[in-house]
Amino acid sequence: MRRIRLVVQYKGNAYAGWQVQDTGIGVQEVIEHELFRITGENIRIHASGRTDASVHALAQVVHFDTNSRIPAAKFPYALNVSLPPDIRIIYGDEPKNPEFHARFDAISKHYRYVILNTAHNSAFHYDTALHIYSELDRELLVQAANQIIGTHDFHAFMAAGTSVKSTVREIFLSKWTFDNNLLIYDIEGSGFLYNMVRIIVGTMLDIARRRLDISCIQEAFQTGDRSVLGATAPAHGLFLTGVRYNDFNSEDYIDVQAI
Amino acid sequence: MRRIRLVVQYKGNAYAGWQVQDTGIGVQEVIEHELFRITGENIRIHASGRTDASVHALAQVVHFDTNSRIPAAKFPYALNVSLPPDIRIIYGDEPKNPEFHARFDAISKHYRYVILNTAHNSAFHYDTALHIYSELDRELLVQAANQIIGTHDFHAFMAAGTSVKSTVREIFLSKWTFDNNLLIYDIEGSGFLYNMVRIIVGTMLDIARRRLDISCIQEAFQTGDRSVLGATAPAHGLFLTGVRYNDFNSEDYIDVQAI
Repeated sequence: MRRIRLVVQYKGNAYAGWQVQDTGIGVQEVIEHELFRITGENIRIHASGRTDASVHALAQVVHFDTNSRIPAAKFPYALNVSLPPDIRIIYGDEPKNPEFHARFDAISKHYRYVILNTAHNSAFHYDTALHIYSELDRELLVQAANQIIGTHDFHAFMAAGTSVKSTVREIFLSKWTFDNNLLIYDIEGSGFLYNMVRIIVGTMLDIARRRLDISCIQEAFQTGDRSVLGATAPAHGLFLTGVRYNDFNSEDYIDVQAI
Repeated sequence: MRRIRLVVQYKGNAYAGWQVQDTGIGVQEVIEHELFRITGENIRIHASGRTDASVHALAQVVHFDTNSRIPAAKFPYALNVSLPPDIRIIYGDEPKNPEFHARFDAISKHYRYVILNTAHNSAFHYDTALHIYSELDRELLVQAANQIIGTHDFHAFMAAGTSVKSTVREIFLSKWTFDNNLLIYDIEGSGFLYNMVRIIVGTMLDIARRRLDISCIQEAFQTGDRSVLGATAPAHGLFLTGVRYNDFNSEDYIDVQAI
Protein backbone atom coordinates (compact mmCIF):
# COMPACT_ATOMS: atom_id res chain seq x y z
CA MET A 1 0.00 0.00 0.00
CA ARG A 2 1.19 3.48 -0.84
CA ARG A 3 -0.19 6.76 0.48
CA ILE A 4 -1.05 9.36 -2.16
CA ARG A 5 -1.67 13.07 -1.59
CA LEU A 6 -3.73 15.17 -4.00
CA VAL A 7 -4.55 18.87 -4.23
CA VAL A 8 -8.18 19.30 -5.31
CA GLN A 9 -9.88 22.39 -6.72
CA TYR A 10 -13.67 22.63 -6.93
CA LYS A 11 -16.45 25.09 -7.64
CA GLY A 12 -18.94 24.14 -4.95
CA ASN A 13 -22.30 25.36 -6.30
CA ALA A 14 -23.39 22.05 -7.81
CA TYR A 15 -22.52 19.99 -4.73
CA ALA A 16 -24.09 19.32 -1.36
CA GLY A 17 -20.65 19.90 0.16
CA TRP A 18 -17.52 17.82 0.55
CA GLN A 19 -19.31 14.80 2.02
CA VAL A 20 -22.24 12.83 0.70
CA GLN A 21 -25.48 14.26 2.04
CA ASP A 22 -29.13 13.36 1.74
CA THR A 23 -29.54 16.68 -0.05
CA GLY A 24 -27.28 15.81 -2.95
CA ILE A 25 -23.97 14.54 -4.20
CA GLY A 26 -20.68 15.33 -2.41
CA VAL A 27 -17.35 16.22 -4.02
CA GLN A 28 -15.75 13.33 -2.12
CA GLU A 29 -17.93 10.62 -3.68
CA VAL A 30 -17.40 12.02 -7.18
CA ILE A 31 -13.61 11.68 -6.76
CA GLU A 32 -13.91 8.25 -5.10
CA HIS A 33 -16.01 7.07 -8.04
CA GLU A 34 -13.29 8.08 -10.51
CA LEU A 35 -10.60 6.48 -8.31
CA PHE A 36 -12.54 3.21 -8.55
CA ARG A 37 -12.66 3.59 -12.32
CA ILE A 38 -8.88 3.96 -12.68
CA THR A 39 -7.68 1.61 -9.87
CA GLY A 40 -10.50 -0.92 -9.47
CA GLU A 41 -10.24 -0.32 -5.71
CA ASN A 42 -12.88 1.01 -3.33
CA ILE A 43 -10.81 3.89 -2.05
CA ARG A 44 -11.83 6.15 0.82
CA ILE A 45 -10.27 9.61 0.57
CA HIS A 46 -9.56 11.79 3.61
CA ALA A 47 -9.70 15.57 3.26
CA SER A 48 -8.19 18.30 5.44
CA GLY A 49 -11.77 19.00 6.49
CA ARG A 50 -15.28 19.23 5.09
CA THR A 51 -16.68 22.16 3.23
CA ASP A 52 -20.37 23.07 3.13
CA ALA A 53 -22.70 23.08 0.16
CA SER A 54 -21.72 25.82 -2.34
CA VAL A 55 -18.37 26.50 -0.65
CA HIS A 56 -15.46 26.38 -3.12
CA ALA A 57 -11.89 25.16 -2.78
CA LEU A 58 -8.86 26.50 -4.60
CA ALA A 59 -6.54 23.91 -3.03
CA GLN A 60 -8.19 21.32 -0.77
CA VAL A 61 -5.84 18.50 0.34
CA VAL A 62 -6.74 14.80 0.47
CA HIS A 63 -4.86 11.56 1.07
CA PHE A 64 -5.70 7.91 0.40
CA ASP A 65 -4.03 4.50 0.28
CA THR A 66 -3.82 2.34 -2.81
CA ASN A 67 -2.13 -0.75 -4.24
CA SER A 68 -2.31 0.77 -7.71
CA ARG A 69 0.99 1.24 -9.55
CA ILE A 70 -0.12 4.54 -11.11
CA PRO A 71 2.62 7.09 -10.32
CA ALA A 72 1.37 9.74 -7.88
CA ALA A 73 2.02 12.56 -10.35
CA LYS A 74 -0.17 10.80 -12.94
CA PHE A 75 -3.29 10.73 -10.76
CA PRO A 76 -4.31 14.31 -11.67
CA TYR A 77 -4.22 13.52 -15.40
CA ALA A 78 -5.96 10.14 -15.04
CA LEU A 79 -8.73 11.60 -12.86
CA ASN A 80 -9.26 14.87 -14.75
CA VAL A 81 -10.10 12.96 -17.94
CA SER A 82 -13.51 12.04 -16.56
CA LEU A 83 -14.13 14.27 -13.53
CA PRO A 84 -16.75 16.97 -14.13
CA PRO A 85 -15.13 20.30 -15.12
CA ASP A 86 -15.99 21.94 -11.78
CA ILE A 87 -13.68 19.47 -9.97
CA ARG A 88 -9.99 19.43 -10.93
CA ILE A 89 -7.04 17.59 -9.41
CA ILE A 90 -4.17 20.07 -9.73
CA TYR A 91 -1.33 18.14 -8.04
CA GLY A 92 -0.40 14.66 -6.82
CA ASP A 93 2.58 13.22 -4.93
CA GLU A 94 3.64 10.58 -2.40
CA PRO A 95 4.30 12.42 0.86
CA LYS A 96 7.78 11.75 2.35
CA ASN A 97 6.13 10.73 5.60
CA PRO A 98 4.08 7.58 4.75
CA GLU A 99 1.85 8.36 7.74
CA PHE A 100 0.91 11.80 6.34
CA HIS A 101 -2.68 12.66 7.27
CA ALA A 102 -4.51 15.42 5.38
CA ARG A 103 -6.59 16.36 8.43
CA PHE A 104 -4.47 15.64 11.53
CA ASP A 105 -1.20 17.01 10.11
CA ALA A 106 -2.66 20.32 8.91
CA ILE A 107 -1.08 23.20 10.86
CA SER A 108 -3.17 25.99 9.37
CA LYS A 109 -5.89 26.75 6.88
CA HIS A 110 -6.41 29.75 4.65
CA TYR A 111 -9.91 30.85 3.65
CA ARG A 112 -11.00 33.68 1.38
CA TYR A 113 -14.35 35.43 1.07
CA VAL A 114 -15.14 37.46 -2.06
CA ILE A 115 -17.63 40.34 -2.20
CA LEU A 116 -18.79 42.24 -5.25
CA ASN A 117 -19.85 45.72 -4.15
CA THR A 118 -21.60 46.98 -7.28
CA ALA A 119 -24.99 48.30 -8.34
CA HIS A 120 -25.68 45.15 -10.37
CA ASN A 121 -24.37 41.63 -9.93
CA SER A 122 -21.89 40.19 -12.45
CA ALA A 123 -23.03 37.68 -15.08
CA PHE A 124 -19.72 35.91 -14.48
CA HIS A 125 -19.19 35.95 -10.71
CA TYR A 126 -22.71 35.54 -9.33
CA ASP A 127 -21.96 32.06 -8.01
CA THR A 128 -18.42 32.71 -6.72
CA ALA A 129 -18.87 36.05 -4.95
CA LEU A 130 -21.46 37.63 -2.65
CA HIS A 131 -23.09 40.60 -4.35
CA ILE A 132 -23.84 43.57 -2.08
CA TYR A 133 -25.23 46.76 -3.59
CA SER A 134 -25.42 48.80 -0.38
CA GLU A 135 -22.52 50.99 0.66
CA LEU A 136 -19.89 49.38 2.88
CA ASP A 137 -17.60 51.41 5.13
CA ARG A 138 -14.23 49.96 4.15
CA GLU A 139 -12.45 51.55 7.12
CA LEU A 140 -14.80 49.68 9.47
CA LEU A 141 -14.14 46.43 7.60
CA VAL A 142 -10.39 46.92 8.17
CA GLN A 143 -10.85 47.75 11.86
CA ALA A 144 -13.12 44.75 12.40
CA ALA A 145 -10.70 42.40 10.62
CA ASN A 146 -7.83 43.58 12.83
CA GLN A 147 -9.79 42.63 15.96
CA ILE A 148 -9.99 39.01 14.76
CA ILE A 149 -6.19 38.56 14.72
CA GLY A 150 -4.70 36.70 17.70
CA THR A 151 -5.76 33.90 20.02
CA HIS A 152 -9.39 34.19 21.09
CA ASP A 153 -12.26 32.08 22.33
CA PHE A 154 -14.41 31.94 19.19
CA HIS A 155 -17.34 30.19 20.92
CA ALA A 156 -19.76 32.87 19.73
CA PHE A 157 -18.51 32.48 16.14
CA MET A 158 -19.81 28.93 15.81
CA ALA A 159 -23.03 27.51 14.40
CA ALA A 160 -25.48 26.46 17.12
CA GLY A 161 -25.50 22.78 17.98
CA THR A 162 -21.82 22.17 17.25
CA SER A 163 -19.80 20.33 19.91
CA VAL A 164 -16.02 20.66 20.14
CA LYS A 165 -13.52 20.27 23.01
CA SER A 166 -12.10 23.77 22.78
CA THR A 167 -13.36 26.86 21.03
CA VAL A 168 -10.04 28.72 21.31
CA ARG A 169 -8.35 29.31 17.97
CA GLU A 170 -5.36 31.33 16.80
CA ILE A 171 -5.77 33.59 13.77
CA PHE A 172 -2.54 34.70 12.06
CA LEU A 173 -4.01 36.61 9.12
CA SER A 174 -7.25 38.59 8.89
CA LYS A 175 -7.04 41.14 6.11
CA TRP A 176 -9.18 42.89 3.50
CA THR A 177 -7.89 43.70 0.02
CA PHE A 178 -9.88 46.19 -2.03
CA ASP A 179 -9.58 45.99 -5.81
CA ASN A 180 -12.06 48.56 -7.09
CA ASN A 181 -15.46 46.92 -6.54
CA LEU A 182 -14.04 43.57 -5.44
CA LEU A 183 -13.63 43.22 -1.69
CA ILE A 184 -11.54 40.21 -0.76
CA TYR A 185 -11.14 38.97 2.81
CA ASP A 186 -8.30 36.57 3.66
CA ILE A 187 -8.14 34.71 6.95
CA GLU A 188 -5.59 32.14 8.05
CA GLY A 189 -5.54 30.32 11.37
CA SER A 190 -4.68 27.20 13.31
CA GLY A 191 -8.19 25.91 12.82
CA PHE A 192 -11.78 27.00 12.36
CA LEU A 193 -15.05 26.18 14.08
CA TYR A 194 -18.13 25.25 12.06
CA ASN A 195 -19.34 28.34 10.11
CA MET A 196 -16.70 30.50 11.85
CA VAL A 197 -15.47 32.32 8.72
CA ARG A 198 -19.00 32.95 7.48
CA ILE A 199 -20.06 34.37 10.87
CA ILE A 200 -16.96 36.59 11.00
CA VAL A 201 -17.72 37.88 7.49
CA GLY A 202 -21.42 38.36 8.15
CA THR A 203 -20.59 40.30 11.30
CA MET A 204 -18.03 42.52 9.57
CA LEU A 205 -20.58 43.28 6.83
CA ASP A 206 -23.23 44.27 9.39
CA ILE A 207 -20.64 46.52 11.06
CA ALA A 208 -19.71 48.08 7.68
CA ARG A 209 -23.42 48.71 6.95
CA ARG A 210 -23.74 50.21 10.44
CA ARG A 211 -26.31 47.65 11.56
CA LEU A 212 -23.97 46.53 14.36
CA ASP A 213 -21.41 48.40 16.44
CA ILE A 214 -17.84 47.16 16.15
CA SER A 215 -17.81 46.58 19.93
CA CYS A 216 -19.87 43.42 19.32
CA ILE A 217 -16.68 41.52 18.43
CA GLN A 218 -15.04 42.04 21.83
CA GLU A 219 -18.39 41.40 23.52
CA ALA A 220 -18.64 38.09 21.64
CA PHE A 221 -15.12 37.07 22.70
CA GLN A 222 -16.00 37.82 26.33
CA THR A 223 -19.53 36.39 26.51
CA GLY A 224 -19.41 33.63 23.89
CA ASP A 225 -22.88 34.78 22.86
CA ARG A 226 -23.71 34.09 19.19
CA SER A 227 -26.66 36.50 19.31
CA VAL A 228 -24.55 39.68 19.57
CA LEU A 229 -23.00 38.94 16.15
CA GLY A 230 -24.26 39.33 12.59
CA ALA A 231 -25.78 36.89 10.13
CA THR A 232 -23.86 33.93 8.72
CA ALA A 233 -22.64 35.11 5.29
CA PRO A 234 -23.80 32.97 2.33
CA ALA A 235 -21.68 29.97 1.36
CA HIS A 236 -21.06 30.83 -2.30
CA GLY A 237 -18.61 33.67 -1.52
CA LEU A 238 -16.32 31.39 0.52
CA PHE A 239 -13.18 29.60 -0.71
CA LEU A 240 -10.89 27.18 1.09
CA THR A 241 -7.77 28.76 -0.42
CA GLY A 242 -5.12 26.43 0.97
CA VAL A 243 -3.95 24.07 3.70
CA ARG A 244 -0.50 24.33 5.23
CA TYR A 245 1.57 21.42 6.61
CA ASN A 246 5.10 21.39 8.03
CA ASP A 247 6.72 20.81 4.64
CA PHE A 248 3.85 21.41 2.23
CA ASN A 249 1.51 24.27 1.39
CA SER A 250 -1.27 23.41 -1.04
CA GLU A 251 -1.58 27.05 -2.13
CA ASP A 252 1.72 26.70 -3.96
CA TYR A 253 -0.08 24.59 -6.59
CA ILE A 254 -2.77 27.10 -7.55
CA ASP A 255 -2.14 28.07 -11.16
CA VAL A 256 -4.88 30.64 -11.57
CA GLN A 257 -7.01 32.39 -8.95
CA ALA A 258 -10.78 31.98 -9.01
CA ILE A 259 -11.46 35.72 -9.32
CA MET B 1 -42.22 56.53 -28.19
CA ARG B 2 -38.88 56.88 -26.51
CA ARG B 3 -35.64 55.16 -27.50
CA ILE B 4 -33.83 53.38 -24.68
CA ARG B 5 -30.22 52.17 -24.70
CA LEU B 6 -29.02 49.36 -22.44
CA VAL B 7 -25.61 47.82 -21.75
CA VAL B 8 -25.97 44.04 -21.40
CA GLN B 9 -23.54 41.56 -19.88
CA TYR B 10 -23.92 37.80 -20.42
CA LYS B 11 -22.12 34.52 -19.90
CA GLY B 12 -22.82 32.78 -23.17
CA ASN B 13 -22.45 29.09 -22.38
CA ALA B 14 -26.14 28.40 -21.73
CA TYR B 15 -27.36 30.18 -24.87
CA ALA B 16 -27.52 29.37 -28.56
CA GLY B 17 -26.12 32.86 -29.20
CA TRP B 18 -27.59 36.34 -29.29
CA GLN B 19 -30.45 35.44 -31.59
CA VAL B 20 -33.07 32.75 -31.29
CA GLN B 21 -31.89 29.58 -33.02
CA ASP B 22 -33.37 26.15 -33.67
CA THR B 23 -30.60 24.82 -31.45
CA GLY B 24 -31.70 26.65 -28.31
CA ILE B 25 -32.69 29.88 -26.65
CA GLY B 26 -31.09 33.22 -27.54
CA VAL B 27 -30.06 35.99 -25.13
CA GLN B 28 -32.22 38.42 -27.13
CA GLU B 29 -35.49 36.55 -26.57
CA VAL B 30 -34.79 36.18 -22.85
CA ILE B 31 -34.45 39.97 -22.51
CA GLU B 32 -37.47 40.64 -24.77
CA HIS B 33 -39.53 38.30 -22.59
CA GLU B 34 -38.67 40.31 -19.47
CA LEU B 35 -39.34 43.59 -21.29
CA PHE B 36 -42.83 42.31 -22.06
CA ARG B 37 -43.28 41.44 -18.38
CA ILE B 38 -42.44 44.95 -17.18
CA THR B 39 -43.93 47.06 -20.03
CA GLY B 40 -46.71 44.88 -21.48
CA GLU B 41 -45.29 45.70 -24.91
CA ASN B 42 -43.92 43.32 -27.54
CA ILE B 43 -40.55 45.01 -27.82
CA ARG B 44 -37.93 44.08 -30.40
CA ILE B 45 -34.41 44.90 -29.21
CA HIS B 46 -31.56 45.71 -31.59
CA ALA B 47 -28.00 44.81 -30.61
CA SER B 48 -24.67 46.15 -31.90
CA GLY B 49 -24.32 42.74 -33.53
CA ARG B 50 -24.93 39.05 -32.91
CA THR B 51 -22.69 36.83 -30.89
CA ASP B 52 -22.39 33.06 -31.43
CA ALA B 53 -23.35 30.27 -29.07
CA SER B 54 -21.09 30.26 -25.97
CA VAL B 55 -19.58 33.67 -26.76
CA HIS B 56 -19.77 36.06 -23.80
CA ALA B 57 -20.34 39.81 -23.58
CA LEU B 58 -18.98 42.16 -20.97
CA ALA B 59 -20.80 45.16 -22.44
CA GLN B 60 -23.06 44.47 -25.40
CA VAL B 61 -25.20 47.46 -26.47
CA VAL B 62 -28.89 47.32 -27.43
CA HIS B 63 -31.59 49.85 -28.20
CA PHE B 64 -35.37 49.63 -28.37
CA ASP B 65 -38.45 51.85 -28.51
CA THR B 66 -41.15 51.92 -25.87
CA ASN B 67 -44.19 53.87 -24.70
CA SER B 68 -43.47 52.79 -21.13
CA ARG B 69 -42.91 55.55 -18.55
CA ILE B 70 -40.21 53.59 -16.72
CA PRO B 71 -37.16 55.90 -16.46
CA ALA B 72 -34.28 54.62 -18.61
CA ALA B 73 -31.99 54.27 -15.59
CA LYS B 74 -34.56 52.02 -13.86
CA PHE B 75 -34.67 49.41 -16.65
CA PRO B 76 -31.54 47.59 -15.36
CA TYR B 77 -33.09 47.17 -11.89
CA ALA B 78 -36.52 46.19 -13.21
CA LEU B 79 -35.08 43.61 -15.62
CA ASN B 80 -32.40 42.15 -13.35
CA VAL B 81 -35.03 41.14 -10.80
CA SER B 82 -36.14 38.28 -13.00
CA LEU B 83 -33.46 37.79 -15.63
CA PRO B 84 -31.37 34.64 -15.16
CA PRO B 85 -28.11 35.39 -13.28
CA ASP B 86 -25.95 34.85 -16.38
CA ILE B 87 -27.62 37.87 -18.06
CA ARG B 88 -27.30 41.28 -16.37
CA ILE B 89 -28.31 44.74 -17.52
CA ILE B 90 -25.55 46.98 -16.18
CA TYR B 91 -26.62 50.38 -17.52
CA GLY B 92 -29.58 52.16 -19.11
CA ASP B 93 -30.12 55.65 -20.55
CA GLU B 94 -31.97 57.64 -23.22
CA PRO B 95 -29.42 58.52 -25.91
CA LYS B 96 -29.23 62.26 -26.71
CA ASN B 97 -29.78 61.42 -30.35
CA PRO B 98 -33.30 59.90 -30.52
CA GLU B 99 -32.25 58.13 -33.74
CA PHE B 100 -29.38 56.34 -31.98
CA HIS B 101 -28.90 52.87 -33.49
CA ALA B 102 -26.90 50.24 -31.58
CA ARG B 103 -25.65 48.59 -34.77
CA PHE B 104 -25.40 51.32 -37.42
CA ASP B 105 -23.87 53.96 -35.13
CA ALA B 106 -21.14 51.73 -33.71
CA ILE B 107 -17.73 53.04 -34.73
CA SER B 108 -15.66 50.23 -33.26
CA LYS B 109 -15.87 47.02 -31.31
CA HIS B 110 -13.52 45.54 -28.75
CA TYR B 111 -13.19 41.77 -28.34
CA ARG B 112 -11.10 39.79 -25.86
CA TYR B 113 -9.98 36.17 -25.99
CA VAL B 114 -8.79 34.47 -22.80
CA ILE B 115 -6.43 31.48 -22.67
CA LEU B 116 -5.41 29.47 -19.64
CA ASN B 117 -1.98 27.97 -20.32
CA THR B 118 -1.68 25.49 -17.44
CA ALA B 119 -1.13 21.76 -16.92
CA HIS B 120 -4.71 21.32 -15.67
CA ASN B 121 -7.82 23.34 -16.43
CA SER B 122 -9.37 25.56 -13.74
CA ALA B 123 -12.54 24.46 -11.90
CA PHE B 124 -13.61 28.12 -12.10
CA HIS B 125 -12.69 29.28 -15.61
CA TYR B 126 -13.35 26.19 -17.74
CA ASP B 127 -16.30 27.83 -19.48
CA THR B 128 -14.86 31.37 -19.84
CA ALA B 129 -11.33 30.60 -21.06
CA LEU B 130 -9.72 28.22 -23.53
CA HIS B 131 -7.45 25.77 -21.72
CA ILE B 132 -4.22 24.88 -23.53
CA TYR B 133 -1.67 22.67 -21.81
CA SER B 134 0.96 22.67 -24.57
CA GLU B 135 3.72 25.25 -24.56
CA LEU B 136 3.05 28.48 -26.44
CA ASP B 137 5.83 30.72 -27.76
CA ARG B 138 4.72 34.08 -26.37
CA GLU B 139 7.16 36.02 -28.55
CA LEU B 140 5.50 34.52 -31.65
CA LEU B 141 2.06 35.46 -30.28
CA VAL B 142 3.21 39.08 -29.93
CA GLN B 143 4.73 39.13 -33.43
CA ALA B 144 1.61 37.62 -34.98
CA ALA B 145 -0.69 40.06 -33.15
CA ASN B 146 1.37 43.00 -34.47
CA GLN B 147 0.80 41.87 -38.07
CA ILE B 148 -2.98 42.14 -37.60
CA ILE B 149 -2.85 45.89 -36.83
CA GLY B 150 -3.79 48.20 -39.70
CA THR B 151 -6.17 48.14 -42.66
CA HIS B 152 -6.22 44.75 -44.40
CA ASP B 153 -8.44 42.60 -46.57
CA PHE B 154 -9.54 40.00 -44.04
CA HIS B 155 -11.33 37.82 -46.63
CA ALA B 156 -9.33 34.74 -45.52
CA PHE B 157 -10.30 35.39 -41.88
CA MET B 158 -13.99 34.77 -42.45
CA ALA B 159 -16.13 31.66 -42.03
CA ALA B 160 -16.94 29.97 -45.34
CA GLY B 161 -20.32 30.79 -46.84
CA THR B 162 -20.51 34.34 -45.48
CA SER B 163 -21.41 37.11 -47.92
CA VAL B 164 -20.50 40.74 -47.28
CA LYS B 165 -19.89 43.74 -49.56
CA SER B 166 -16.35 44.41 -48.45
CA THR B 167 -13.90 42.29 -46.46
CA VAL B 168 -11.56 45.20 -45.72
CA ARG B 169 -11.43 46.12 -42.03
CA GLU B 170 -9.28 48.43 -39.93
CA ILE B 171 -7.79 47.06 -36.70
CA PHE B 172 -6.59 49.67 -34.17
CA LEU B 173 -5.58 47.38 -31.32
CA SER B 174 -4.21 43.82 -31.43
CA LYS B 175 -2.31 43.04 -28.27
CA TRP B 176 -1.48 40.17 -25.91
CA THR B 177 -1.23 40.66 -22.14
CA PHE B 178 0.43 37.89 -20.16
CA ASP B 179 -0.52 37.54 -16.50
CA ASN B 180 1.32 34.42 -15.33
CA ASN B 181 -0.66 31.54 -16.87
CA LEU B 182 -3.44 33.76 -18.21
CA LEU B 183 -2.93 34.89 -21.80
CA ILE B 184 -5.32 37.65 -22.78
CA TYR B 185 -5.72 38.91 -26.34
CA ASP B 186 -7.43 42.24 -26.99
CA ILE B 187 -8.50 43.35 -30.45
CA GLU B 188 -10.38 46.50 -31.42
CA GLY B 189 -11.42 47.47 -34.91
CA SER B 190 -13.89 49.25 -37.14
CA GLY B 191 -15.77 46.00 -37.65
CA PHE B 192 -15.36 42.27 -37.78
CA LEU B 193 -16.30 39.56 -40.26
CA TYR B 194 -18.07 36.39 -39.15
CA ASN B 195 -15.67 34.30 -36.99
CA MET B 196 -12.83 36.75 -37.72
CA VAL B 197 -11.55 37.04 -34.13
CA ARG B 198 -11.73 33.28 -33.56
CA ILE B 199 -9.81 32.59 -36.81
CA ILE B 200 -7.16 35.20 -35.89
CA VAL B 201 -6.76 33.60 -32.43
CA GLY B 202 -6.72 30.03 -33.77
CA THR B 203 -4.05 31.03 -36.30
CA MET B 204 -1.89 32.78 -33.67
CA LEU B 205 -2.11 29.68 -31.45
CA ASP B 206 -1.03 27.40 -34.30
CA ILE B 207 1.89 29.77 -34.96
CA ALA B 208 2.83 29.77 -31.26
CA ARG B 209 2.73 25.94 -31.20
CA ARG B 210 4.88 25.95 -34.39
CA ARG B 211 2.24 24.17 -36.45
CA LEU B 212 2.09 27.14 -38.84
CA ASP B 213 4.72 29.62 -39.97
CA ILE B 214 4.00 33.25 -39.17
CA SER B 215 4.24 34.07 -42.89
CA CYS B 216 0.75 32.57 -43.30
CA ILE B 217 -0.79 35.84 -42.09
CA GLN B 218 0.68 37.93 -44.92
CA GLU B 219 -0.12 35.13 -47.36
CA ALA B 220 -3.74 35.17 -46.20
CA PHE B 221 -3.96 38.97 -46.65
CA GLN B 222 -2.61 38.62 -50.21
CA THR B 223 -4.48 35.51 -51.38
CA GLY B 224 -7.68 35.67 -49.32
CA ASP B 225 -7.32 31.91 -48.85
CA ARG B 226 -8.85 30.59 -45.61
CA SER B 227 -6.96 27.30 -45.94
CA VAL B 228 -3.52 28.80 -45.17
CA LEU B 229 -4.72 29.83 -41.69
CA GLY B 230 -5.28 27.89 -38.46
CA ALA B 231 -8.38 26.46 -36.86
CA THR B 232 -11.26 28.63 -35.62
CA ALA B 233 -10.65 28.98 -31.86
CA PRO B 234 -13.51 27.74 -29.62
CA ALA B 235 -16.29 30.18 -28.78
CA HIS B 236 -16.14 29.94 -24.97
CA GLY B 237 -12.87 31.93 -24.70
CA LEU B 238 -14.30 34.93 -26.58
CA PHE B 239 -15.82 38.08 -25.06
CA LEU B 240 -17.43 41.08 -26.72
CA THR B 241 -15.75 43.52 -24.35
CA GLY B 242 -17.31 46.77 -25.52
CA VAL B 243 -18.82 48.83 -28.31
CA ARG B 244 -17.72 52.38 -29.01
CA TYR B 245 -19.94 55.17 -30.39
CA ASN B 246 -19.12 58.83 -31.03
CA ASP B 247 -20.15 59.90 -27.53
CA PHE B 248 -20.52 56.61 -25.72
CA ASN B 249 -18.28 53.65 -24.90
CA SER B 250 -20.06 50.69 -23.31
CA GLU B 251 -16.80 49.50 -21.69
CA ASP B 252 -17.03 52.43 -19.28
CA TYR B 253 -19.90 50.62 -17.53
CA ILE B 254 -18.09 47.38 -16.74
CA ASP B 255 -17.83 47.15 -12.95
CA VAL B 256 -15.83 43.95 -12.68
CA GLN B 257 -13.91 42.04 -15.32
CA ALA B 258 -14.90 38.45 -16.15
CA ILE B 259 -11.45 37.04 -15.35
